[in-house]
Amino acid sequence: MRIARFSIDGNVAFGAVEGEAPDGLVLDIIKGIPYADFELSGTKVPLSKVRLLPPVLPNKVVAFGRNYAQHAAELGNEVPDVPFAFLKPTTSVIGSGDAIAYPSFSNELHHEAELAVVIGRMCREVPRERVKDVIFGYTCANDVTARDVQKREKQWARAKGFDTSCPLGPWVETDLDPSDLTIQATVNGEQRQLGRTSEMIHSIEDLIVNISEAMTLLPGDVILTGTPAGVGPLNVGDEVAVTIEGIGTLTNKVIKRG
Amino acid sequence: MRIARFSIDGNVAFGAVEGEAPDGLVLDIIKGIPYADFELSGTKVPLSKVRLLPPVLPNKVVAFGRNYAQHAAELGNEVPDVPFAFLKPTTSVIGSGDAIAYPSFSNELHHEAELAVVIGRMCREVPRERVKDVIFGYTCANDVTARDVQKREKQWARAKGFDTSCPLGPWVETDLDPSDLTIQATVNGEQRQLGRTSEMIHSIEDLIVNISEAMTLLPGDVILTGTPAGVGPLNVGDEVAVTIEGIGTLTNKVIKRG
Repeated sequence: MRIARFSIDGNVAFGAVEGEAPDGLVLDIIKGIPYADFELSGTKVPLSKVRLLPPVLPNKVVAFGRNYAQHAAELGNEVPDVPFAFLKPTTSVIGSGDAIAYPSFSNELHHEAELAVVIGRMCREVPRERVKDVIFGYTCANDVTARDVQKREKQWARAKGFDTSCPLGPWVETDLDPSDLTIQATVNGEQRQLGRTSEMIHSIEDLIVNISEAMTLLPGDVILTGTPAGVGPLNVGDEVAVTIEGIGTLTNKVIKRG
Repeated sequence: MRIARFSIDGNVAFGAVEGEAPDGLVLDIIKGIPYADFELSGTKVPLSKVRLLPPVLPNKVVAFGRNYAQHAAELGNEVPDVPFAFLKPTTSVIGSGDAIAYPSFSNELHHEAELAVVIGRMCREVPRERVKDVIFGYTCANDVTARDVQKREKQWARAKGFDTSCPLGPWVETDLDPSDLTIQATVNGEQRQLGRTSEMIHSIEDLIVNISEAMTLLPGDVILTGTPAGVGPLNVGDEVAVTIEGIGTLTNKVIKRG
């Protein structure tokens, strides 16, 4: 099932996406929140009439670096022996259709298309065989990065945590085998990144075991699983789109920060 | 004014700390939340009867590394040209009196006493001369660090973000000149860290200008300003106390993670 979060006429709700793109998509509004058992209300609104919001409200966004060998190589980095994680703040999260505001302190903004895992239940120290039980679903992410700032600041809170640096969406797909999906990024319709999730060095199971060993994960928390090769610049006016097979397309335009 | 957050008989509230330690301290319960104008209710409870909670519920905790030259030197690090920030997740926050749970994936836990700045209003791109206006107050923090993990993982989400790694408290002092205060850490009553906030390389103004250039800060957000020299090991059973002049003492015991 595809679950979107949206606003219409000032009200915010979750809904199940049904029908066929582009014109037939409708949202069946969910009663309450979708992390536990939930009911569909039967009230349907056309997707074209709503504003999509980030599909989750995470307490935290954990991102893993250098999880695709070709991407590590393209930036001249070695593949780390152990996974390493950094955090993006919730103030960085935007939805599909929202604008990425080019930060004032950077001159080198890059896109990084990533598969995002959405956590469905509170958990810690998740054993490998239970990882599937704590996953709510999957969405597309863009780990937007101020590459010049990343190079000069040892830790990446500013380079990867500025406002609008974490587009997520368009919705969460709950029924998906994430092990071998194409993942791509286009800028103004031109392909820039292309990879397969099967190229991940550390699997989704590895990553969730690794991070939940340290910290409690909460429903709605998001794990970014690394980006494939092909990262490159974003400029004001560009439209960047992240597409993952079986999920959909996350689209954002880059604007001057107001 | 000293503002604490506490629970009593299952209810959670903020209160203004009045009277003299150790026995005369009482809390005057605050109506609502203390970030805007607020009223004291006049209902007073003895501090000894409540459980102190983390004095704020941050949306994010931003911490700055290597902001005291002697601490950078003691770990063999150079002082960075520019400040660099990392994030601690909200799931790491505990209050005074709560236990620090020794993480299962580390054998080298360290204390790091720090002055914490609590933000009072939503803000971004704060000009230097307006920094004072966005500060709600100050509290003590312990940036508890798995030093062995920090050495082998390039980004520090696990090393500095595990559950219980961010003790804050005991309360927020809103009337304080933070520019030259003694800051110390003791372990089992023995002094380990001693410094003065005047030794910071980058001032509180610098740090808030720096981080708010990138990300929106929200009421209750916390900025950790770096640790002075003297960091060292914590073992199960130890009691670590961070004391900052004009604020008070944050005390936590280290336990085995259950």
